[in-house]
Amino acid sequence: MGYKKVDKKDIENILSLVADKERVFHGESINEDYSHDELGTVKQMPDIVVQVLSTEEVSAVMKYAYENNIPLTPRGSGTGLVGAAVPIYGGIIIDLSKMNKILELDEENLTLTVEPGVLLMEISKFVEAQELFYPPDPGEKTATIAGNINTNAGGMRAVKYGVTRDYVRGLELVLPNGEIMEVGGKVVKNSSGYSLKDLIVGSEGTLAIVTKAILRLLPLPKKAISLLIPFPNLDAAIETVPKIIKSKSVPTAIEFMQRAAIVAAEEFLGKKFPDSSADAYLLLTFDGNNREEVERNYENVANICLEAGALDVLISDTEERQESIWTARGAFLEAIKASTTEMEEVDVVVPRNTVAEFVKFTHELEDKFDIRIRSFGHAGDGNLHIYILRDQLDETTWHRKLNDTMESMYQRSRELNGQVSGEHGIGFAKKPYLKTSLSKETMGIMQGIKLVFDPKNILNPGKVCQ
Amino acid sequence: MGYKKVDKKDIENILSLVADKERVFHGESINEDYSHDELGTVKQMPDIVVQVLSTEEVSAVMKYAYENNIPLTPRGSGTGLVGAAVPIYGGIIIDLSKMNKILELDEENLTLTVEPGVLLMEISKFVEAQELFYPPDPGEKTATIAGNINTNAGGMRAVKYGVTRDYVRGLELVLPNGEIMEVGGKVVKNSSGYSLKDLIVGSEGTLAIVTKAILRLLPLPKKAISLLIPFPNLDAAIETVPKIIKSKSVPTAIEFMQRAAIVAAEEFLGKKFPDSSADAYLLLTFDGNNREEVERNYENVANICLEAGALDVLISDTEERQESIWTARGAFLEAIKASTTEMEEVDVVVPRNTVAEFVKFTHELEDKFDIRIRSFGHAGDGNLHIYILRDQLDETTWHRKLNDTMESMYQRSRELNGQVSGEHGIGFAKKPYLKTSLSKETMGIMQGIKLVFDPKNILNPGKVCQ
Repeated sequence: MGYKKVDKKDIENILSLVADKERVFHGESINEDYSHDELGTVKQMPDIVVQVLSTEEVSAVMKYAYENNIPLTPRGSGTGLVGAAVPIYGGIIIDLSKMNKILELDEENLTLTVEPGVLLMEISKFVEAQELFYPPDPGEKTATIAGNINTNAGGMRAVKYGVTRDYVRGLELVLPNGEIMEVGGKVVKNSSGYSLKDLIVGSEGTLAIVTKAILRLLPLPKKAISLLIPFPNLDAAIETVPKIIKSKSVPTAIEFMQRAAIVAAEEFLGKKFPDSSADAYLLLTFDGNNREEVERNYENVANICLEAGALDVLISDTEERQESIWTARGAFLEAIKASTTEMEEVDVVVPRNTVAEFVKFTHELEDKFDIRIRSFGHAGDGNLHIYILRDQLDETTWHRKLNDTMESMYQRSRELNGQVSGEHGIGFAKKPYLKTSLSKETMGIMQGIKLVFDPKNILNPGKVCQ
Repeated sequence: MGYKKVDKKDIENILSLVADKERVFHGESINEDYSHDELGTVKQMPDIVVQVLSTEEVSAVMKYAYENNIPLTPRGSGTGLVGAAVPIYGGIIIDLSKMNKILELDEENLTLTVEPGVLLMEISKFVEAQELFYPPDPGEKTATIAGNINTNAGGMRAVKYGVTRDYVRGLELVLPNGEIMEVGGKVVKNSSGYSLKDLIVGSEGTLAIVTKAILRLLPLPKKAISLLIPFPNLDAAIETVPKIIKSKSVPTAIEFMQRAAIVAAEEFLGKKFPDSSADAYLLLTFDGNNREEVERNYENVANICLEAGALDVLISDTEERQESIWTARGAFLEAIKASTTEMEEVDVVVPRNTVAEFVKFTHELEDKFDIRIRSFGHAGDGNLHIYILRDQLDETTWHRKLNDTMESMYQRSRELNGQVSGEHGIGFAKKPYLKTSLSKETMGIMQGIKLVFDPKNILNPGKVCQ
């Protein structure tokens, strides 16, 4: 790629751009964590890491990288699952996790202005104390907000509330040449030229570095109730979802889960789930402003489920009980991970009425390729999280089986008019699948857009469409 | 610009690309309407007009234009207010208004697939008959859906439901080179590369031609109630809005109106408004699934208004009464237009808590420049519609006063962190104001994106950022 290799002089120069030397790491002093994200399989150490504290520092380091042709990769808390924050060509990592201040709550405009490194869990805690609500709710609460913005994270509540893009009103950005730019603002509507704000959301740190975000808030719903609904089998559970959607009910979340995932989570957490007797479950949440409103909402859905063969409807209206259910749901990924030696994930999104078909297909692949597959996911929005587990397979067998399984899944997803990623992004790991799923024209336009923002191709190179 | 002038040979060639000759117009046979949109002041006749009936026809004509270097401008029903559909370099107009079929209602995925020329009023009628809801609700119901998509139209209900972009799940596009491309789909989430779908929404027909759209629907709220709230003056009315937002109520719409606009609408429609005794009004709508839920929602707001000095709270819970109020609201623009010889409009959007300040400022301009100004707008989302009226001013005085007034307004909007357009777009008429409001970097990126899609600059040239 013809990048300049970081040398002593570069390190000296970069040190001079940052106020405290303790926030710059190079050579042996770099923590190994910086070489990978939560996926773990894509690895490369950076040459230098800068923990930035301000937009000006980001701008200065970015400008230096630009002028000296050094690749630069931005990083939040490293919870990504596609290798997007891995510096595959080495160079500089800008670590934004210390830019973690909540800057302003504007109650008259219902906006929250934050630095990029604020964690998702800190945002919900802060706004909920004010009876306000930031709806996006991905499972990984220790992700940074800029990480969520860069993947357009969706989470559990997308059924009712939409995804991260819907809650980003404005951004402050540092461009690859070091210039600082603002897009959007506190305004509710905007038709003033191409929506660069919406283009940056989901661009995985390849077009610009997010240094500030203005988020849209809603009033906090006063009441939420969860229904845990056991079904005799997974097909029966998932096939009920389009009926729920068609019934004009509006659940906040519809998740599906199988006994295997629940049992693994019970073991992992050392805690019992309220029920694990059935083969499969739907977990639904409804929210609203009072109990009656919420009850009216879910009664109809409970009946639909029972008519569709549900074994029971377990209502969780206390915080403790909901906590125990959602804690288990939140531990699925960790529990599956702990149950095997290595794994790969698929994060496809398909139209909601084809989820049952797709999940059934993955179970057939489990038999066909004789490999263990675990899945759970957002039945209400068609976004599935499917994990292919290595267990005791040797290297060659693992890669062969993994490849066959992944190819089959992405092909089936395309046939169902699905997309490669619902919320985890493309990063490095999913590039081949994106390439197969999009037309040459579409890839060409994405590559062209990348070069408009980053003509020297130094910001997070080798990701998404490259 | 070095475009090829359309000659006889081109007309023959284009005629051969379209099945029926009656759908191709050239020379004298072109209706004068094609030279302008609803704004009226930007004018240019095209050399040839093709009323297309299919994506393939769009593709064939677009490809011909591309290969022969002829500018091409797409057009819907011509209700735009910024000259975006005016072929300022002549050439070809593709009229998409006859591609007006509703293609599919998918109740399991809650999507509606439509051709670009379907009118907004047809969409609402169709889906509401199925107890479904397409929330975007701009005043101009005879606009086409692709026109709404291309301006990212907002409308009255943006306070609660957001704007057009939030309801576009997927698009079929024809690129400037004639290639057909799909972006997005029926999926609820999508993090599969840069979101070209969100970039096309609001791009005013300059990047690609929308030939099909997959829209997201919601269940239809079963009950809606409007409150008409008279205030002693406009300041008192508008200053109440941030208090309503802060109170965590969620109205569907908050409009403000002044007696002058109401009286003009009464005269224009020959119908009485329920009340026109006060100087200023807020008009709010609340929706929900039953009367109690809606009442709970609005009671608190009614009290806030009374505490803030409202003279009364008039509740409209019958369809007839609501109809009479909203018909008047819908006639404001036509009524103002009928009251003067010529007018220009400003469609700025400012943070919601600065609306009162901005409207007060426009009233000061009325005195300062001795020119008649009328305004109404979406107080709940900060998007104002302000009309500067020529009345009997001579050409020179009109342009001088108009220019001074517009400059002052856009400058004030910038100072309040507002944007040039909330929903009407930039088109041709607002280009100078966009240029002043954005940085050189931002404009450069928009221009770069335009060239990625349209390297020959033949699709709707001279608009938005050019």
